[in-house]
Amino acid sequence: MRARVYVTLKPGVHDPAGKAVQGGLSSMGYAEVQGVRIGKFFEIELDDAALEPRARLEEMCRKLLANTVIESYRVELL
Amino acid sequence: MRARVYVTLKPGVHDPAGKAVQGGLSSMGYAEVQGVRIGKFFEIELDDAALEPRARLEEMCRKLLANTVIESYRVELL
Repeated sequence: MRARVYVTLKPGVHDPAGKAVQGGLSSMGYAEVQGVRIGKFFEIELDDAALEPRARLEEMCRKLLANTVIESYRVELL
Repeated sequence: MRARVYVTLKPGVHDPAGKAVQGGLSSMGYAEVQGVRIGKFFEIELDDAALEPRARLEEMCRKLLANTVIESYRVELL
């Protein structure tokens, strides 16, 4: 079984890396770019016999994959 | 207009950060996790009048957002 977990900075949290990419694109002539925010995702391979995969993955997010003070997460089972 | 660009390591490229997360989850008791690979994504806000957004975004990927030697990318217009 395969899952994807997306971790994004919450709205309002500064994203200096995103700003840097935005500045880079802008200076390369991509004037249509008005904002960039960077997130990460985890492609997770799970044992097919895994029980309650969504609940377990959400627990992994809270405990390790995301910093819930500044980040939100979304679990997608494939 | 909004777009998302997903950048992933190509198959076969080592992902030490993913391995570290996998080891962490494993030692926390998540024995069902068999593999983890980490990617990143960019949420890009584009001018609504942007011309050929998909082609331009793919160009941004090749020039800045992805290292095409080791990474592949996927553009999603929202």
